Amino acid sequence: MHNLDPLRDVTAGEVVAPYLHARAADFLRGLRVHGESGSDSAGAEEAARTLRAAARRISGTLHTFRPLLDAAWADQLRTELAWLSGTLALEQACTSRLVRLVDALSRLSSAGGPVPAARGGGTATATSRNPGARTETGSGAAAAGLTVGAARAGALLERQLTLARTRAHSAALQALGSARFHAVADAVALLASEVPLGPAGAAPATEVVDAPAGDAERRLLESVAALPLTRAAHPYNSDALALAAGESQDAPWHRTRHLLRLHRYASEVLHTGGEPDPVLFESARALDRHRDAAEAAAAAAAAARTPRIAPATAYALGVLHADQRHEVEAARFAFQHAWRRATAPVS
Amino acid sequence: MHNLDPLRDVTAGEVVAPYLHARAADFLRGLRVHGESGSDSAGAEEAARTLRAAARRISGTLHTFRPLLDAAWADQLRTELAWLSGTLALEQACTSRLVRLVDALSRLSSAGGPVPAARGGGTATATSRNPGARTETGSGAAAAGLTVGAARAGALLERQLTLARTRAHSAALQALGSARFHAVADAVALLASEVPLGPAGAAPATEVVDAPAGDAERRLLESVAALPLTRAAHPYNSDALALAAGESQDAPWHRTRHLLRLHRYASEVLHTGGEPDPVLFESARALDRHRDAAEAAAAAAAAARTPRIAPATAYALGVLHADQRHEVEAARFAFQHAWRRATAPVS
Repeated sequence: MHNLDPLRDVTAGEVVAPYLHARAADFLRGLRVHGESGSDSAGAEEAARTLRAAARRISGTLHTFRPLLDAAWADQLRTELAWLSGTLALEQACTSRLVRLVDALSRLSSAGGPVPAARGGGTATATSRNPGARTETGSGAAAAGLTVGAARAGALLERQLTLARTRAHSAALQALGSARFHAVADAVALLASEVPLGPAGAAPATEVVDAPAGDAERRLLESVAALPLTRAAHPYNSDALALAAGESQDAPWHRTRHLLRLHRYASEVLHTGGEPDPVLFESARALDRHRDAAEAAAAAAAAARTPRIAPATAYALGVLHADQRHEVEAARFAFQHAWRRATAPVS
Repeated sequence: MHNLDPLRDVTAGEVVAPYLHARAADFLRGLRVHGESGSDSAGAEEAARTLRAAARRISGTLHTFRPLLDAAWADQLRTELAWLSGTLALEQACTSRLVRLVDALSRLSSAGGPVPAARGGGTATATSRNPGARTETGSGAAAAGLTVGAARAGALLERQLTLARTRAHSAALQALGSARFHAVADAVALLASEVPLGPAGAAPATEVVDAPAGDAERRLLESVAALPLTRAAHPYNSDALALAAGESQDAPWHRTRHLLRLHRYASEVLHTGGEPDPVLFESARALDRHRDAAEAAAAAAAAARTPRIAPATAYALGVLHADQRHEVEAARFAFQHAWRRATAPVS
């Protein structure tokens, strides 16, 4: 999937270093924006997103091209970047999970209007996925019971996820003020001008750069080959609704999502300035949606284990859990569709 | 969709009467089997099925070909047959609804094994839809909580639907012993040898039989044209999961199911001995599944309104409700697929 021309007449280090320099510069820019954002939460979010994107790309590149780099340095920095991006990701994850769940409750329980509990949600707005498509008004005790339960479930999820988000926000602020973070920032600042290469870094790129990128691609293809794609291509197979098997059946998809990212970053290293593959992008989006829906389903299930909730609340959370697992199944369908288009012209 | 050749040189009555004679004979056979079945519940079920199938066909034919018949007689007999087949259908509906719900709970909550509550269910057996496909074992509090809730939900549904089935069984026995039923049986016995025709019954079949059958087909096509088939063709559209709009959004599909039956029976009248169209059969099966899933979803929702149930039970019923609405959506997808194949070569 990659073109070898840019590798001609350069060393391996000359291929990998400019990419790491550029991502390190992105990281430092994110850090500067964060420092300037103060109480501007949109600015702080944007800064965190930039920091995370750069940290993921640096970490992925250190992983894939480790054979060309100073291995001990690469391993150490990767560990620190994983800690940082994990810490920064949590707040955003809580926000988007709440939005997803409140949207789903709104779609499930109303004939178009938002769920009352969604009002106080800060960034969580209840917009129906298909506004206007719900013109028929439901009636009867079932709809009324579900509406009451959905409002309570929405309020419960909002309380729980807002609390988690607040904690994640504090943890992120604390991390960004820590000595550990300053050490990471120093290491990345050095990386913006100098990449600690290993002996293979001085070898011609054509001889040594291809193998690690090829390995990343091979690991991705093996992971995809192990997925039940034929089954996923059959709509409404109900596989993702085997709730008791939920987490273990999701793992291979999550792993594929991670490997697709590593492959994408390796392609970015080799194709500097090239267009990203729109179809691989679609595949990645489907796996992001798979992950988000799986985590939202787990959050609904966790909320249902809150002691002393009303049966109507538990009922609405059960509906929501199944709905999000349905979304997991839909994301698998979307992935196999995108992937087939991605690989059809190549293989 | 029908061939006019068999209508040449016969009167309208000569086309419709043999079909009604044959269905009346089926009805009388069902009645005889019922009388002989005694305590053999499989025999009694078979007899009820035969009676219902014959009653539906007679009633549908009286409806579609009413212009050729003695209208007052036809209307009166139709009312009585509708009462009878409705009464007889209820017991079987309770049984199949319980099987469907217990199967779904088993699939949702376990890694392959049946739900404990399914054991005492008489005809309700818990067979996973995809036995062997659930080899991964789930773990954690979510799975355990769901398993407990599912077992309780299964027990609750079994109690409620078994009670409903027992009542339906008594009502059916009472109906079959009633004077009202004996009057219906007498009317059908007469129908086995003589059909009360109207003036148009003596007209040439080519002139008058086509129009009523064409009307039945036109009503079906209009009903299908009003369905959101383009939307249904897009898998995972989540339309059927707008639970508050559930019943009102289902009505056009139920109506189509009824009109497809009338069309099928009219085709049977005109094509005596012909092969049933396998693709229309698929369409009809999809709409049966749509109806069954919608009713099962409603039964899960109704069970969740039982006073003083545990939150875990309510939660499992919520999961089940959403799962069955997911089945409703899957049935719509299957219908549009079958229908497109059914109509593509004709239109």
